[in-house]
Amino acid sequence: MYKIIFSPEKKEISVDSETDLFHAATGAGIYISSGCAGEGNCGRCKIIIKKGKFHTLPSRFISEKEKKKGYVLACQTYARSDLEIEIPPETGLKKFQLVKEGIYTPVEEKVFPHSPLAKKVYLELPHPTLTDHLADWERVTREIRKKEKEIKDLRIDITKLRELANFVRVNNWRFTVSLDENGDIIDFEPGDRSADSYGIALDIGTTTVAIYLVDLNKGSLLGAKAMYNRQTTYGDDVITRIIYSEENADGLEKLTQAVRETVNQLISELAKEKNVSLEDILVLEVAGNPTMLHLFAGLEPKYIRKEPYLPTANFIPQVHAKEIGININPEAMVSFLPGVASYVGGDVTAGVLACGMNESPALSLLIDLGTNGEMVLGNKDFLISAACSAGPAFEGVGIKSGIRALEGAIERIQVSSDGSEVKYFSIGGTLPKGICGSGLVDSIAELFKGGFIDKRGKFVRESSSRIRETSEGLEFVIVPAKETFKGEDIVLGEPDIANLIRSKGAVFLGAEVLLEQMGYSFKDLKKIYIAGMFGTYLDIEKAKIIGLLPDLAKEKFVFMGNSAITGSKMCLLSGKAREKVKEIAQKMAYLELSVNPRFMNEYSSTLFLPHTNIDLFPSVKQMLKTQ
Amino acid sequence: MYKIIFSPEKKEISVDSETDLFHAATGAGIYISSGCAGEGNCGRCKIIIKKGKFHTLPSRFISEKEKKKGYVLACQTYARSDLEIEIPPETGLKKFQLVKEGIYTPVEEKVFPHSPLAKKVYLELPHPTLTDHLADWERVTREIRKKEKEIKDLRIDITKLRELANFVRVNNWRFTVSLDENGDIIDFEPGDRSADSYGIALDIGTTTVAIYLVDLNKGSLLGAKAMYNRQTTYGDDVITRIIYSEENADGLEKLTQAVRETVNQLISELAKEKNVSLEDILVLEVAGNPTMLHLFAGLEPKYIRKEPYLPTANFIPQVHAKEIGININPEAMVSFLPGVASYVGGDVTAGVLACGMNESPALSLLIDLGTNGEMVLGNKDFLISAACSAGPAFEGVGIKSGIRALEGAIERIQVSSDGSEVKYFSIGGTLPKGICGSGLVDSIAELFKGGFIDKRGKFVRESSSRIRETSEGLEFVIVPAKETFKGEDIVLGEPDIANLIRSKGAVFLGAEVLLEQMGYSFKDLKKIYIAGMFGTYLDIEKAKIIGLLPDLAKEKFVFMGNSAITGSKMCLLSGKAREKVKEIAQKMAYLELSVNPRFMNEYSSTLFLPHTNIDLFPSVKQMLKTQ
Repeated sequence: MYKIIFSPEKKEISVDSETDLFHAATGAGIYISSGCAGEGNCGRCKIIIKKGKFHTLPSRFISEKEKKKGYVLACQTYARSDLEIEIPPETGLKKFQLVKEGIYTPVEEKVFPHSPLAKKVYLELPHPTLTDHLADWERVTREIRKKEKEIKDLRIDITKLRELANFVRVNNWRFTVSLDENGDIIDFEPGDRSADSYGIALDIGTTTVAIYLVDLNKGSLLGAKAMYNRQTTYGDDVITRIIYSEENADGLEKLTQAVRETVNQLISELAKEKNVSLEDILVLEVAGNPTMLHLFAGLEPKYIRKEPYLPTANFIPQVHAKEIGININPEAMVSFLPGVASYVGGDVTAGVLACGMNESPALSLLIDLGTNGEMVLGNKDFLISAACSAGPAFEGVGIKSGIRALEGAIERIQVSSDGSEVKYFSIGGTLPKGICGSGLVDSIAELFKGGFIDKRGKFVRESSSRIRETSEGLEFVIVPAKETFKGEDIVLGEPDIANLIRSKGAVFLGAEVLLEQMGYSFKDLKKIYIAGMFGTYLDIEKAKIIGLLPDLAKEKFVFMGNSAITGSKMCLLSGKAREKVKEIAQKMAYLELSVNPRFMNEYSSTLFLPHTNIDLFPSVKQMLKTQ
Repeated sequence: MYKIIFSPEKKEISVDSETDLFHAATGAGIYISSGCAGEGNCGRCKIIIKKGKFHTLPSRFISEKEKKKGYVLACQTYARSDLEIEIPPETGLKKFQLVKEGIYTPVEEKVFPHSPLAKKVYLELPHPTLTDHLADWERVTREIRKKEKEIKDLRIDITKLRELANFVRVNNWRFTVSLDENGDIIDFEPGDRSADSYGIALDIGTTTVAIYLVDLNKGSLLGAKAMYNRQTTYGDDVITRIIYSEENADGLEKLTQAVRETVNQLISELAKEKNVSLEDILVLEVAGNPTMLHLFAGLEPKYIRKEPYLPTANFIPQVHAKEIGININPEAMVSFLPGVASYVGGDVTAGVLACGMNESPALSLLIDLGTNGEMVLGNKDFLISAACSAGPAFEGVGIKSGIRALEGAIERIQVSSDGSEVKYFSIGGTLPKGICGSGLVDSIAELFKGGFIDKRGKFVRESSSRIRETSEGLEFVIVPAKETFKGEDIVLGEPDIANLIRSKGAVFLGAEVLLEQMGYSFKDLKKIYIAGMFGTYLDIEKAKIIGLLPDLAKEKFVFMGNSAITGSKMCLLSGKAREKVKEIAQKMAYLELSVNPRFMNEYSSTLFLPHTNIDLFPSVKQMLKTQ
């Protein structure tokens, strides 16, 4: 057995010569990024061997330059002595601040009355006497009912009830009781602690997990935090993860564990920063796509990916925090936002709640741009949803120089008319590290507009000195190596363009089919709500140029940021909002695109910039003409 | 350490020389009867040392004859070598058949509609398709709702939900679901198992625990079983047990364990006899006095005995069987009948339900004659209850030759007019072993009627040759040693009479005070319901002679047997019955006798046969006159 030390966290593990370093590390709880769960197919698990002997299999993902610096793929490398290893930032588990907290304030009519899912009530009970001889529990419920007129049946767990008799007397019949909207008692505490009542709104994304810490009394947001879903170790998209759960005996357990660890870490760090005790977190409201909710709850996900595509439950029943290993008050209620179908989950219904399209007579379209692209069409009379696998390109994944939207990610470029000069803008203005999703949309649009890329998504060979040939086709150098953080060229290749075109094509066609299904076309839309953090950074004009968004007036577009977590927060704070989101889920129809002939047949027509039928994009047509 | 073998069960334990045999045995799960929890004060833990050396402290409870046979008190005896010990039947844990099952059939208007607390439903689900793509759980609930129109919200535990997706597919969407009246899913089983749906009605008495095994579909009784409450090791009455729980660190846990073991043993034996699988027992309905219910649920009992006498809860919340260690279906609902006050529990409300006095305009009195004597006065307009500590004399406990109502217990005697001859009738007609509670009432009434006992409860010295002097006063030899099972005289002593007089006095005065409180007297009563197994064997005329029951026409008395278990069974089989019993508990007032001046001041007036005021018992007065 060899001793392996991983920097920067100085974690130490033991490993034999037969186990690759990826499996050894992740097995010991050390996060290493991966898109293929350690099969050598994605090139994501790059690590740097600082010291020691090793055996590594050759990989096309490791450049000569990287090789010299000691880079290897963890999943292809075996120890031959004790090792010192560095996990570079792009491979490790990065936490990040939500750059904007993405709080969308719903318009007037969609504000729900304040009635949080849980609350604390301070009680001063009259001491029992021979004439007022109500039993302890009934005495407590009598007093709660005096203060909380609308509470339903009050219920208490037998283990809590066991402590009641001594507790009330030790505390001289003065104490604080916390309870949830079902009337379930969460806790008893000495003294008046009614001011400290908190909840967590959680959005479990396939790639990113985000939380809000909410003051349940004031209805205010105390803070937000996000980080990558630890599950990304086991695959980039939901299908890969479901397959992982099927092919490994403890696969489901590992995936469940990974996301719960992510959530626990986020909560514990944010609570600490905001000086909130974990015991005072009384409720957790969870949004996410059905696969994410299944994996979080530990439910079997495999039938989600098998025709006819069924989740175990769209309405996942409430549980207590202790039942799923979430470290807040053990009796806290964990509530799942309801879903509609295998690929339309509580994140989408939360988004509808947040934008309020279900309350308005105006025909609206909600598009949630993530690894999975979901969309909802409707108004106060109907709601219909669909989902398409957009792939992770919008998150900078699967792109040669792609990175997520972190500091140093290029989000916008300007190209001189001869294509020789490029001005770039990175998040935080630091040395560029790569291109994020919105930067990718921007770059392709800019290069297409300038005539460096043709409508098939191929580079025009002689249009710029920055275009060069590689074994995978032509590529465009956006930033030369000497100006970058890693000392390597940041490029845009033809496979990257093809990737993004596939993503945008699926989303656009999905929306188009959905409209047609209901007898509408894009011009009938009064509003288009763009949800997802990726959307927040998106330039609408650029998105139109590449054909991701329809060619409609700018004022019809509304950016919602992370609408899933916004809707989740609304539910935390109002029982009425939760009733509403259930109605939304029950009312919403679902169109299965993967078996829709129109979607299958016309898909290839969308694989152009902006579209085979340029007349669908009159402003883009005009722009190209005038150049 | 010495090795001790206990017969007849051949159980072996190790013990040091410092630990008495009572604590060593009960600590190892061997039942030895006790009324004082091993303090040497009750004389109940007699065992026989067959072989080996020991040290025993002298005790007045061991006669010379017993000493010769090897009898010792287990709690006063220490091993000095390996031992072979026999636990005689009267000391061990005896099971017994309920001699009559005590089923009281309520009259027409009190029969509730059949809607059992749990049921099984066989489902054949349509296979999901792309157009019928409801998720698994919603598909199951849709189908249940088609069959069960009145079901409330359907709920499922997350651990059960985890198994659902694979279960439904493995079983080709055909299976049986069991659910309780709350809509909580209890279980899923392959195939059609809807015929096998059972429930247990349980009555936890201070002395005796009884169960009914009920077929929930047919509403029929499959069988009944009863045995002593293993808690009697820790004391005869509720107060002694509460004190035991206070004075021993693990006291509450031991008491809880003891009664749960009793219940588990009863259920497992009866289910085996009737060929019913424990998994098919879907619900348990529990009756008992508040202390018994608290100890069964593991709730703190100590404030029940402290002014102002409060239980933790009168309405104990439902739990699942697995939460309290009862071996039926782990998800089975355990439901507690609601109580009213510290000494008026779910056994009393069940009794009211069973006799239906709450539905009738006629003024009725329900008297439950057990170790604790409870009574309820009322009609359809009002209900008021009281309780008095009758003591265990009615169960033959605390009486020199007293035994419980087992085979060999004398239940009736006839005395010749000169007092020289006694004819006795024992249960089962076997050699007499002692006198049971009803036999005690009968014997005292018979001897009082014959002039051998005076109205103060003292023997008339020269009235019979069978009367003799002892250090504790006079006593009457009912059966001489040579005719008895144990070869010892069966006697009735003055302390025994005094004991019974205190018991009957408390019950009679309690009822009298309750009537007065509401402006009534005995003659206003239209019905008197006598509950409790002791009552079943009682001769009303004899009970009047000693002043236990009021001097009213015989046809006004109704014997109910164990009305607690009858009411419990009614609740098992009808949701309406359970609603009704909740109404009964909410409506019922409670009079605390222990602080009632009338009860305290007049108590001594009842300590006569039949009463200081003989005019309250005109038929007894007449009888005494005519003799």
